[in-house]
Amino acid sequence: MPVLDFYFEFASTYSYPAAMRIGALAQAAGVSLRWKPFLLGPIFKAQGWDTSPFNLYPGKGRYMWRDVARICARLELPLRRPDPFPQGTLLAARVAHVGLAEGWGENFCRAVYAAEFGEGRAVGEAAVVRELLHALGVAPEPVLARASSPEIKARLRAVTEEAERAGVFGAPSFVTPDGELFWGQDRMADALAWAIRPQAVPT
Amino acid sequence: MPVLDFYFEFASTYSYPAAMRIGALAQAAGVSLRWKPFLLGPIFKAQGWDTSPFNLYPGKGRYMWRDVARICARLELPLRRPDPFPQGTLLAARVAHVGLAEGWGENFCRAVYAAEFGEGRAVGEAAVVRELLHALGVAPEPVLARASSPEIKARLRAVTEEAERAGVFGAPSFVTPDGELFWGQDRMADALAWAIRPQAVPT
Repeated sequence: MPVLDFYFEFASTYSYPAAMRIGALAQAAGVSLRWKPFLLGPIFKAQGWDTSPFNLYPGKGRYMWRDVARICARLELPLRRPDPFPQGTLLAARVAHVGLAEGWGENFCRAVYAAEFGEGRAVGEAAVVRELLHALGVAPEPVLARASSPEIKARLRAVTEEAERAGVFGAPSFVTPDGELFWGQDRMADALAWAIRPQAVPT
Repeated sequence: MPVLDFYFEFASTYSYPAAMRIGALAQAAGVSLRWKPFLLGPIFKAQGWDTSPFNLYPGKGRYMWRDVARICARLELPLRRPDPFPQGTLLAARVAHVGLAEGWGENFCRAVYAAEFGEGRAVGEAAVVRELLHALGVAPEPVLARASSPEIKARLRAVTEEAERAGVFGAPSFVTPDGELFWGQDRMADALAWAIRPQAVPT
């Protein structure tokens, strides 16, 4: 099966519907997924942004929230804004990397998004992350300890750098086996189709 | 028939496939179109940008050109980059408003996009605009004179201000009769569907 890299950031609104659906869509398409939580912060900082562009450009932000509401309504996903937006997602991203190595990572990722954007919860807080782990039947304390280990910190940094090298500048993004980059939850179907059969594009 | 406002800027790459297709798609959907060429310059300036964000953010720019190449390949539209990018589009926008009042505006808009992004021509130059008019069977000189009249200048300013008030921050954008804004050529089908029947979105 072809492999598609799925790059996402827990603070990213459009990554929410992507994360909730991509597993089923990839399975139906016959594509294998690699879940790659990364941090947009360093990438945004390199562009001179110290917060989400949706906060820096209010018109774009207003549109984004309305657009996400339309998308979620169509997909029958609940939507509630977390406060503050964006949430700090360093801890959740590190915990996700622990989980992806231990087999409960994808469920954790979906649980983070459902809490953050479905219920508007402050997933930036360690107490909320603990609670989400608990609900998944995972003992929180050893996971939080591992999440702050040098290995996991290095892993998150490496995935973020790998995303940058692949040309990623926003989330969600998808990279096919031949290095083709797709940006946006509305390009998920295109990315999956390309993973199966690359499209001919005249240069 | 419901009416959809189609806001586009001649310098905008994604407006090219939108402009080439929207007429046929709107007709098939039973939606009436209002073609609204406007200027992104003043809107970008208000965000602190003095050129296209695709030039200001090179990673985003590289992605955009590749993405537009994929879209054009799929739609069997030729693609060639104009130099410089973006082209100055003040004259073309004013001429388009003359044409929209005189009945040849839509054909002129498509001719500008086909020349600019299909052939990579410098549509910012008056000589090219003249040539496009000529090819449409429209005598260029009276049109160029009218294009610099106070009425047409005011018309372009008014449409640009109207776009801003509708929340437009990029091109192409679409606004439905009930004021719903859609941004991006990939949202054309959503915008047309909304114009026919607004979607229920919980608030």
